[in-house]
Amino acid sequence: MSEPVASSGRKARRGGREGRRSERAAKSAVTQAYITRKVPFTELCNEEGLEIIEANADIILEEIGIEFKDDEEVLQIWRDAGADVQETRVHFPKGLLQNLLKTAPAEYTQHARNPERNVVIGGKNLVIAPVYGPPFVADLDQGRRYGTIEDFRNFVKLAYMSPAIHHSGGTVCEPVDLPVNKRHYDMVYSHMKYSDKPFMGSVTHPERAQDTVDMCEILFGKEFVAENTVCTSLINVNSPLMFDGTMLGSLKAYAKAGQACIVTPFVMAGANGPVTAAGTVAQALAEALAGMALTQLIRPGAPVIFGLFASPISMQSGAPTFGMPETTLMISAAAQLARKLGVPFRSGGSLCGSKVPDAQAAYESAHTLAPSMLCGVNFMLHGAGWLEGGLASSYEKFVMDIDQLGMMGVLARGYDFSESGQAMDAIREVGPGNHYLGCTHTQANFETAFYRSSIADNNSFEQWEAEGSQDILQRANTQWKEMLASYVAPDLDPEKDQALLEYMERKKASFPDSNV
Amino acid sequence: MSEPVASSGRKARRGGREGRRSERAAKSAVTQAYITRKVPFTELCNEEGLEIIEANADIILEEIGIEFKDDEEVLQIWRDAGADVQETRVHFPKGLLQNLLKTAPAEYTQHARNPERNVVIGGKNLVIAPVYGPPFVADLDQGRRYGTIEDFRNFVKLAYMSPAIHHSGGTVCEPVDLPVNKRHYDMVYSHMKYSDKPFMGSVTHPERAQDTVDMCEILFGKEFVAENTVCTSLINVNSPLMFDGTMLGSLKAYAKAGQACIVTPFVMAGANGPVTAAGTVAQALAEALAGMALTQLIRPGAPVIFGLFASPISMQSGAPTFGMPETTLMISAAAQLARKLGVPFRSGGSLCGSKVPDAQAAYESAHTLAPSMLCGVNFMLHGAGWLEGGLASSYEKFVMDIDQLGMMGVLARGYDFSESGQAMDAIREVGPGNHYLGCTHTQANFETAFYRSSIADNNSFEQWEAEGSQDILQRANTQWKEMLASYVAPDLDPEKDQALLEYMERKKASFPDSNV
Repeated sequence: MSEPVASSGRKARRGGREGRRSERAAKSAVTQAYITRKVPFTELCNEEGLEIIEANADIILEEIGIEFKDDEEVLQIWRDAGADVQETRVHFPKGLLQNLLKTAPAEYTQHARNPERNVVIGGKNLVIAPVYGPPFVADLDQGRRYGTIEDFRNFVKLAYMSPAIHHSGGTVCEPVDLPVNKRHYDMVYSHMKYSDKPFMGSVTHPERAQDTVDMCEILFGKEFVAENTVCTSLINVNSPLMFDGTMLGSLKAYAKAGQACIVTPFVMAGANGPVTAAGTVAQALAEALAGMALTQLIRPGAPVIFGLFASPISMQSGAPTFGMPETTLMISAAAQLARKLGVPFRSGGSLCGSKVPDAQAAYESAHTLAPSMLCGVNFMLHGAGWLEGGLASSYEKFVMDIDQLGMMGVLARGYDFSESGQAMDAIREVGPGNHYLGCTHTQANFETAFYRSSIADNNSFEQWEAEGSQDILQRANTQWKEMLASYVAPDLDPEKDQALLEYMERKKASFPDSNV
Repeated sequence: MSEPVASSGRKARRGGREGRRSERAAKSAVTQAYITRKVPFTELCNEEGLEIIEANADIILEEIGIEFKDDEEVLQIWRDAGADVQETRVHFPKGLLQNLLKTAPAEYTQHARNPERNVVIGGKNLVIAPVYGPPFVADLDQGRRYGTIEDFRNFVKLAYMSPAIHHSGGTVCEPVDLPVNKRHYDMVYSHMKYSDKPFMGSVTHPERAQDTVDMCEILFGKEFVAENTVCTSLINVNSPLMFDGTMLGSLKAYAKAGQACIVTPFVMAGANGPVTAAGTVAQALAEALAGMALTQLIRPGAPVIFGLFASPISMQSGAPTFGMPETTLMISAAAQLARKLGVPFRSGGSLCGSKVPDAQAAYESAHTLAPSMLCGVNFMLHGAGWLEGGLASSYEKFVMDIDQLGMMGVLARGYDFSESGQAMDAIREVGPGNHYLGCTHTQANFETAFYRSSIADNNSFEQWEAEGSQDILQRANTQWKEMLASYVAPDLDPEKDQALLEYMERKKASFPDSNV
């Protein structure tokens, strides 16, 4: 199959009727809105192992308990639900959380403003979003620098133009040029304006979560938001075994509004988790169970995702390490546990520790991306652009990563056992010692036969040399610039756009700028 | 776990008693001789799909048949076995080949001259060998150039020093500075002299295969070779559906001597195979069945491996492409079919089309290495050093690839569910909101807790900058030079060494040099 980068917008900016037709075609070009796997799940942990992890999570929840900081309302919710609350420490009787979680949907639809971009999260589906959180951005021309709102918009545009990315994500980079307490307005607006894919909301303060919901109500309509999921947001656990007031407040805001939360233990094994896969996953399961069950107490049926961000630290330097085999083991076991619980699972991403998009960056990313797809991640944050342990969003790495993601999408589709897929006519036609290049079957299928990379160079050494001996980093540099140059914004109802801008202006004017 | 590169030889070249002790330690340092997986096989093809492929292979074998060129003896063997032979085309009654294959072992031991390096090929085991076949070599200092016997020795030494490589391989590069008809002596001798790991034999002419067996008899003893497998060699099929006289002659020489053959359909899908995974695997199964069954007619019980080298070509340029999702699908299905047949399976490798060890090279390699391990490849040729579609052996890529292989080795070992692996004492000791760095469990396990890369940089951006802002290519350049500088040859019985040198001298003098 061909998965061209920048399928939308390539031919835009031409004049006249043809230009307008191309532009319409570009805007409406929706390929696959998300991946539905046809290959079985890779399950690296056996049932006995899963049961050990589950039993250990139960022990952690009952004996050690979880801390819920700075939120008396949550503590009261737990008391009412039958948990044993000692100051801010909550101990859970065995089975309570699993029982509460029964109201959570196994899969849910997150609506996009373009219904063709709606995604179904959970089950056999994989929805991929770009990198989340880096304060820095990097490219080959300017190197590494703090991110700005212009960079933010650029990454939203690149994600919009990439068929392998299904979801616009959230903090594609930190727009450090805007005040901390107001930048969320421009971030959420950028996702709404420059893309028509689904997106994530702000979680840095409960009020900012509420602002996100307010803006969604302007974009989608109040009634629609009341009954449908239009954003999926990231609630990190303060591992080990603790939730803070900020995350609890955001979780409550989203769950109350029926919006999805990804409850994610964020474990650097060896630092805030034990140095083993089985131990880290048991801790993460306990943490995720507590957070996920809480959403159901706030609004039964609210969509919630079991998230896992887990990587070992270097035992020499203490630095986080990525692409590690231990992470794959953790992802597989956690994905299996999520399926047993009947909730969607989030993990994976183009994770790496490298400071530049070199071979290290590429293979560390590959060793997270491939097992994540195989093991059954449903929502993949950090799918493209992650560099330097998540401290930088890289333009070049973004386009390299979407090539890898395109490969994973084809792999997920599995085998074609149709008559054409079996290709027996071709084998009969060609026979021993001949070649398939010109045979009927090859001619009929050559356009869609194989995954087609937009960035790999497979030419001869001589041709590659004649074309300037460029490595993939240089080709990637050309590609993201071409993509941004050919970007065409998806149509947005001018009244809604105006209403969003007015809302933001009013809110921004209502309190002073601050960088805390 | 720590898998240091160059565990052997690091401290050599010191003087005095300490030096000798270090040298002995270096020589005897055998880590894991091969990988025995504890994780389940990833099986991407369902049973129904496998049965379709098997039925199609049967149709190919019976209706289309296989060409056996330039070997009347083989045609007579097939007649005697009950096949329908029309000139050089052999048609096989359904089930004949599968029946013949019942005498082939499901796994076998290939002996190394150091018994601690013996490998078991088949079953749950994975044995990894370096790149095979490139006429060129490449490094950062000198670029790309024709390979020499010095390069050949260097790659043998690097493989010897790499714990993630279990097998010395065969044509680690072509020593183009030696005459074509005599270079095999120096190649085989280099494996015997500069490594004590198991190796592969020459297949470029039946007499060269016999020379390999002769040299093995000098090294291991005639009686030992008569009863044990001491080399594993590569028999490529001339896909589609054809074997040539050279490969048949080599196959016969090795099988008669009880030495292992890897019967490998070499399919560039779209060129010498159909453009679908299901079609390519059916063709490959038919080819492999014919070649593997032939070994059993020559010597029942001779070890034989089902090989698959399959990659799509670019439908735009006709160039081979690597790391493609279609290859993963082919590898998984073929591995499953090999297990059904009860024979070991060869595939995988650090395959890539890139001309330089950049991110493309790395992620294309990763997307072959990871699924190959997960899907259950037993013998992985091209495990390290492959560059440029197999046209060049790269020094830098070699050390990058062994890092990836080390990761795969840890992944294969799976979970530790011992008391220490469960880490409940650590979770209890640390509790909510604290850190694990200093806890008893971390202190007890920090040396072996996680895979430790010898080449990845996970330091802070500032530290990385202070150390010269090197990308992995530059670090790899330093590493392979350090490895070669610290190489210490394994002891070789001087009498055997002398006998090998005399044999080579005598044989080389007995016929003129030729480059055909």
